[in-house]
Amino acid sequence: MVLADAGCDVRLWGRNAQVAHEVTTDRANARYLPGVELPSMTGTTDAAEALAGAQLVVVAVPSQVARATLRELRHLVEPDAVIVSLMKGVELGTDERMTQVIVEALEVPLSRVAVVSGPNLAPEIAQRQPTATVVACSDESAARFVADACSNAYFRPYTNGDVVGVELCGAVKNVIALAVGMAQGRGFGSNTVATVITRGLVEITRLGLELGADAETFAGLAGMGDLVATCTSPLSRNNTLGRHIGEGMSLEEAVVATGTTAEGAKSCRSVLDLATKHGVDMPITAGVVAVLYEGLPVEEMARGLLSRPQKAEGVGR
Amino acid sequence: MVLADAGCDVRLWGRNAQVAHEVTTDRANARYLPGVELPSMTGTTDAAEALAGAQLVVVAVPSQVARATLRELRHLVEPDAVIVSLMKGVELGTDERMTQVIVEALEVPLSRVAVVSGPNLAPEIAQRQPTATVVACSDESAARFVADACSNAYFRPYTNGDVVGVELCGAVKNVIALAVGMAQGRGFGSNTVATVITRGLVEITRLGLELGADAETFAGLAGMGDLVATCTSPLSRNNTLGRHIGEGMSLEEAVVATGTTAEGAKSCRSVLDLATKHGVDMPITAGVVAVLYEGLPVEEMARGLLSRPQKAEGVGR
Repeated sequence: MVLADAGCDVRLWGRNAQVAHEVTTDRANARYLPGVELPSMTGTTDAAEALAGAQLVVVAVPSQVARATLRELRHLVEPDAVIVSLMKGVELGTDERMTQVIVEALEVPLSRVAVVSGPNLAPEIAQRQPTATVVACSDESAARFVADACSNAYFRPYTNGDVVGVELCGAVKNVIALAVGMAQGRGFGSNTVATVITRGLVEITRLGLELGADAETFAGLAGMGDLVATCTSPLSRNNTLGRHIGEGMSLEEAVVATGTTAEGAKSCRSVLDLATKHGVDMPITAGVVAVLYEGLPVEEMARGLLSRPQKAEGVGR
Repeated sequence: MVLADAGCDVRLWGRNAQVAHEVTTDRANARYLPGVELPSMTGTTDAAEALAGAQLVVVAVPSQVARATLRELRHLVEPDAVIVSLMKGVELGTDERMTQVIVEALEVPLSRVAVVSGPNLAPEIAQRQPTATVVACSDESAARFVADACSNAYFRPYTNGDVVGVELCGAVKNVIALAVGMAQGRGFGSNTVATVITRGLVEITRLGLELGADAETFAGLAGMGDLVATCTSPLSRNNTLGRHIGEGMSLEEAVVATGTTAEGAKSCRSVLDLATKHGVDMPITAGVVAVLYEGLPVEEMARGLLSRPQKAEGVGR
């Protein structure tokens, strides 16, 4: 929708023939976007048809099936196409970020792979509410190309060369959103929420700097922007799951009440592992892991965070 | 309350004898903090009694009367006392920050003047909800002294040497909160709010760097933290005023509906003047001024922000 509204000729590939037909003929997707009138685009279940001549290939499949899905399609992708990842996860087993998976599965250079990430909750974009985003690519002209392709009246892209930072923000924000939800579930208000968000971003930044990312990325739309949107939106599953935990449910009860295991509950342990491996202090992430998997009461987590030794602000490298 | 809960011997000076008596005898302030049980402290209308022997003097009077109030008291302040400003304004006429006013009015060196600022909405602190804050002072040991004095089970101070940055954050956040309120009044959700907050912080940072502040302050609790709290709390008057404007009221109607002229509506023009004087681009602040004082429709402001030339993320120095 964003690309078509920006004037691109869009072909949408998927496995469901009925959805492909509905998108093409009725300009609608009744199940996922009820009430939204889509711009003109062509839905298809034929990947070859979708990819033939495509200069820009946008990938939005579940993180854990990305490698297998892309592997199947690799001979259909035009040799000079730019590939865009909208995926936020980290691959289980390899601990690879999605751009790393794309490079390997499609056998393309990293300079042709971009990430788009920001305060971009899908239901609000579908209503064409104004927002901004980050297009990250190691190659500046490829980033520009993607930004030009998706810029429209309600969607404003900014370019950034820091692929690692942008991808890391997308993965770790869900852990912080869980901590914010826990605080809200305990009845705490805006001060506590803002403190957890701010100190949460400090610990994401600390990890990112250790992994070679730029500090400025974390203060930007993919970092602070997406974190604020995710932590303050009632639409976020991570926030909802955290609230249930904060209200006193066990993880199992909270998962049932939320209707799903939120992404942050899965990834918090691998994020903490990564931090430990690199000697990075992430007290909020550690607190979330302790509450979810080691039976620490939320009350104790809050007390633990507040009673740490006093220190100067900042990432403290 | 924060200081007394941290174990300090607190004397509270004010002009209202009844409040002073109520605080001392009933441990309550029924008008401003209904239902809150205060710790033990001594209320007094006698400034000499309050200030005699005080090592720490916390100033929380309206910005525009700070100079005159402090001038009167200057002979009562102990020569080695540390002065803390909780005030967020900029003095009209002089454009001075509150620490500058304190230095001049009390005739003390800047190294003895500190600022405390962060995500610290008073009604939530009064409920002893956990939060954190920044103690900024050019003298590190004075900052430490203040942080030690106010650290308690629900209030966690971090120290910072950047007085200019911390004070600037406190003043400009109200302008951004107005812009966020306008977007919410127009019916926009978390994406738009998070985008305005993030890009708002970028323009505050840009101004701050020009005035000699540290970039890291803006990503911290006094910058991002207070901005997120102020912009997402229904308790913020700036947010409420902005919402009314976004719903279509004129400034006059919105002031009546809000019950007050919010601080941001007063300071947005002086912030923009300051930015213009220093050649700093602040498009959101300029948009707020244009909507409030030049009749620009909110819809046009949003369109203007989205149609600016595309560029790379960051403060763009």
